[in-house]
Amino acid sequence: MRTVLCYGDSLTWGYDASGPRRHALEDRWPSALQRELGDGVQVVAEGLNGRTTAFDDNLAGADRNGARFLPTLLSSHAPLDLVIIMLGSNDMKSWIHGDPFVARQGMRRLIAIVRGHDDPLGHPEPKVLIVAPPVASPGKKGAGELAGYYEQLADEVGCGFFDASGVCEVCQIDGIHMDAENTRRLGEALAPVVRVMLEL
Amino acid sequence: MRTVLCYGDSLTWGYDASGPRRHALEDRWPSALQRELGDGVQVVAEGLNGRTTAFDDNLAGADRNGARFLPTLLSSHAPLDLVIIMLGSNDMKSWIHGDPFVARQGMRRLIAIVRGHDDPLGHPEPKVLIVAPPVASPGKKGAGELAGYYEQLADEVGCGFFDASGVCEVCQIDGIHMDAENTRRLGEALAPVVRVMLEL
Amino acid sequence: MRTVLCYGDSLTWGYDASGPRRHALEDRWPSALQRELGDGVQVVAEGLNGRTTAFDDNLAGADRNGARFLPTLLSSHAPLDLVIIMLGSNDMKSWIHGDPFVARQGMRRLIAIVRGHDDPLGHPEPKVLIVAPPVASPGKKGAGELAGYYEQLADEVGCGFFDASGVCEVCQIDGIHMDAENTRRLGEALAPVVRVMLEL
Amino acid sequence: MRTVLCYGDSLTWGYDASGPRRHALEDRWPSALQRELGDGVQVVAEGLNGRTTAFDDNLAGADRNGARFLPTLLSSHAPLDLVIIMLGSNDMKSWIHGDPFVARQGMRRLIAIVRGHDDPLGHPEPKVLIVAPPVASPGKKGAGELAGYYEQLADEVGCGFFDASGVCEVCQIDGIHMDAENTRRLGEALAPVVRVMLEL
Amino acid sequence: MRTVLCYGDSLTWGYDASGPRRHALEDRWPSALQRELGDGVQVVAEGLNGRTTAFDDNLAGADRNGARFLPTLLSSHAPLDLVIIMLGSNDMKSWIHGDPFVARQGMRRLIAIVRGHDDPLGHPEPKVLIVAPPVASPGKKGAGELAGYYEQLADEVGCGFFDASGVCEVCQIDGIHMDAENTRRLGEALAPVVRVMLEL
Amino acid sequence: MRTVLCYGDSLTWGYDASGPRRHALEDRWPSALQRELGDGVQVVAEGLNGRTTAFDDNLAGADRNGARFLPTLLSSHAPLDLVIIMLGSNDMKSWIHGDPFVARQGMRRLIAIVRGHDDPLGHPEPKVLIVAPPVASPGKKGAGELAGYYEQLADEVGCGFFDASGVCEVCQIDGIHMDAENTRRLGEALAPVVRVMLEL
Repeated sequence: MRTVLCYGDSLTWGYDASGPRRHALEDRWPSALQRELGDGVQVVAEGLNGRTTAFDDNLAGADRNGARFLPTLLSSHAPLDLVIIMLGSNDMKSWIHGDPFVARQGMRRLIAIVRGHDDPLGHPEPKVLIVAPPVASPGKKGAGELAGYYEQLADEVGCGFFDASGVCEVCQIDGIHMDAENTRRLGEALAPVVRVMLEL
Repeated sequence: MRTVLCYGDSLTWGYDASGPRRHALEDRWPSALQRELGDGVQVVAEGLNGRTTAFDDNLAGADRNGARFLPTLLSSHAPLDLVIIMLGSNDMKSWIHGDPFVARQGMRRLIAIVRGHDDPLGHPEPKVLIVAPPVASPGKKGAGELAGYYEQLADEVGCGFFDASGVCEVCQIDGIHMDAENTRRLGEALAPVVRVMLEL
Repeated sequence: MRTVLCYGDSLTWGYDASGPRRHALEDRWPSALQRELGDGVQVVAEGLNGRTTAFDDNLAGADRNGARFLPTLLSSHAPLDLVIIMLGSNDMKSWIHGDPFVARQGMRRLIAIVRGHDDPLGHPEPKVLIVAPPVASPGKKGAGELAGYYEQLADEVGCGFFDASGVCEVCQIDGIHMDAENTRRLGEALAPVVRVMLEL
Repeated sequence: MRTVLCYGDSLTWGYDASGPRRHALEDRWPSALQRELGDGVQVVAEGLNGRTTAFDDNLAGADRNGARFLPTLLSSHAPLDLVIIMLGSNDMKSWIHGDPFVARQGMRRLIAIVRGHDDPLGHPEPKVLIVAPPVASPGKKGAGELAGYYEQLADEVGCGFFDASGVCEVCQIDGIHMDAENTRRLGEALAPVVRVMLEL
Repeated sequence: MRTVLCYGDSLTWGYDASGPRRHALEDRWPSALQRELGDGVQVVAEGLNGRTTAFDDNLAGADRNGARFLPTLLSSHAPLDLVIIMLGSNDMKSWIHGDPFVARQGMRRLIAIVRGHDDPLGHPEPKVLIVAPPVASPGKKGAGELAGYYEQLADEVGCGFFDASGVCEVCQIDGIHMDAENTRRLGEALAPVVRVMLEL
Repeated sequence: MRTVLCYGDSLTWGYDASGPRRHALEDRWPSALQRELGDGVQVVAEGLNGRTTAFDDNLAGADRNGARFLPTLLSSHAPLDLVIIMLGSNDMKSWIHGDPFVARQGMRRLIAIVRGHDDPLGHPEPKVLIVAPPVASPGKKGAGELAGYYEQLADEVGCGFFDASGVCEVCQIDGIHMDAENTRRLGEALAPVVRVMLEL
């Protein structure tokens, strides 16, 4: 049995702007990924609305700093074979940082956390796949540069990279989130990448 | 679709003292509960080795304070219909508190967190079911009293209660954890209770 | 006996720019409100220079994050009948956020804290009255929009709203704080609103 | 105008074990002290159920660590002439420390916080009066030693000391809290001490 | 024996942009200062890449907030005669604050921490010397104003001031850090200032 | 140039019970170690009175939790070749844990922090040498067992171990700290161990 953790924000939680409501379980991309990968892999979904890579945002009764929460998840879902991280959209909010370069630094921090995590039972460290979220609607400053930064980072640290913009797009309603079809498509498109990384 | 969060410690993670290793996915009690409840319910497992109800324990690179981590999970898995909390065993460690009365106060805090949690989309608050862990091997001071305290608390605050000692027991190896058969049995025994609480 | 908590920043503390010094006790708006309401109501003043709605500002040896400090005050002054919150001016500092939309999100968080607070003795939750601070001197970006955002928020969540700009204005010296007459006038103007909310 | 901050726990909040409820405003000791001192002094009450001197207790949705909360109060009520600290009873709980020596160390920390607090407007630091709470009912380990430790500490650091046991006693109901008459009596008995310290 | 703490960021750590690597021990400015001052003075170097005056930056597995770390160093190296603080460059990053006025406020906070620090053995408080870092390469917004702000602050609070730009300059490679010769020169130039302040 | 970090508590700071005062610089064990090792090695001393392995102790205006402070030091003194950790005595205080088994768990956490630390410049991780402090005077519960636990731990995780009790002893005055001669002797005795570990 292989275990994959999907660590993300509202795009992973499944925020449906047409409600607002949450997409049905079967439409969220981690569920689609699970269907594609079948019974030999357990896909764990952990998406939080508003989660950033590594920055505080106290506007909710939840800890939105992805770097503070990740270590505990690495333990509670250990042993992990792969961590898929799709974060960065909330870093682009003007009151967080609004700067794709900073999101890249936050992503770099998350990768370091995965690689330095203390596993008392001695499991090997999981692989990492970073996913650039689909580009928010035109006009959002810097959004288009995120994928380039992430690809460069993945090369530098030696982890996997996937650009969601190649397979899905944000909805018209808020220009940030995905409709059901697009979120399912993302899970399906990630499946072959995951299979290669897990050598399935 | 109903969603149930199983919030616990190593007994929920599935610590197998005969390894030490983690029990196979299918043997962990949340998986057994999922099987029993079928497709109309999603069971989310979140068990961390060493997790306490509401106390700090800095001996791991993970946040073991159950009260600090719970709010974020309530958001990332929202909307929830039921939260099953099986914690308290680690509160009984001498260097945490070693006192079932204090574990009860910690459990009371967790229930208050569930009930006061801010849900921006306005979902109704989930029900709570507290589970007293199986009594650790004889000789552990106060362990036997935990179930009584939890039952009293459940009456007082109006939530569900289940005593795991009625259906399973700890293993001989360390007198704390459960073998595969016992952990499966716990999930199966919880199913009818959950069905009643969810009015399935 | 009814109890009202006045939760604010330097405008509530009573910062007198002509000193700098603190306004005399009788000139601060919570004192004026107390005089108007008389003996049947206790008005508690809790104003901190530099306090924000929900953001960290480490430039003082005091915790300026209003969201971190509020829960304890809700307990130490329980049972409360009304919480008046006049915050947001410090959120407008360029190094905090400088954005009235974000101040509104912070205010929303404070209201959620009041409503979700755990009161062990079971007192009913207090009502909330949000007060938009007087508009800072012309030229401050976004300052004029705060009142509109707060009014909209009050409608949305169902709490009271009062726009201080209708009854008082900031002083010439720093364009931020109020002189003694204006701060007294605010307390007097709030009295009838509070009487209605408390059904006095 | 002189300002006095009364910093304490449930004995200052006014916990009435016969309810449980809060004592009427006029019966709490800070109110009695206010009556005795008259209009030239403002007495600020800040009592929180469960507050310790300097230790974490996560069993409530409020920060019970007196050392973490005090700096902000020193600023929000500045300029202060006197800080009266009556804490230590909760330090004696078995799950906090249960040791009067440790409570003394916590009280020492609070005094250091008052003395090292940064006041941006340059007000002189307030005087400190530490009050040993009335001795809890017989049988509580170490409770009787607290007053001795506090007196010794007051001598060492040069602050005021008052032993509440000389003028009031705990009630029969829970052996910890005071009835209305005793709590009033404490405020009255503190008045002459405060007058001397403030040179009124 | 006198003790001097050098509290800084990468300019104190000795970041050599030509590597990137760390400058040799003998080339770092605290070492040069030590050589100049001789055996009667102990110079302690504590420089961290990315350290700010008083702001959080979670992009590293180290606490970069200078205000949170300083109190512990004041104790671990007590008794101190002088604290030299050269910080502010990282405050100028766009995602921290990018504003020299805010860096000044952070520096003011650090000075308040030194002056209010609780020393249990009663050592006198150390003197403070603030050092404006060399101006980053042209085009960096606001960089040139930092020295002016620091000088003004030093006058206001009565501490020492030194402008590094008078004796050294940043390298061409990244326009931020110093080469070996410049960092040595800074330590040599600080020596006479330190001698005066320590009355050597 | 090799760099060695000496991470400890009052025994490393150089607490002289006959004062109380701090031992002269030349008498502290890190200084003695520096003399023995000569110019090719830089010995960095970081000892804090009251420091524990991994537990909070809020009785000072400094962070005594060794696990919270260590990551920053690993960065500010990088690249490190060896970290010598002599902690555990303060864990034995009754109000911390008073249990050598728990001190061992805290030491295990510190070793994990060293090994998982993220070094952005890619330096190899430093070696670790754990030192059991000299046994406190007879009668201290559990003190004698600490060395055995640490030796066992060193074997298990593959790091160096040294028992200070073999070469030095605590003073008569408080039964906890060392006089000048003993602290010097510790540094001298550690030198050959360090030479072997650094392959000098």
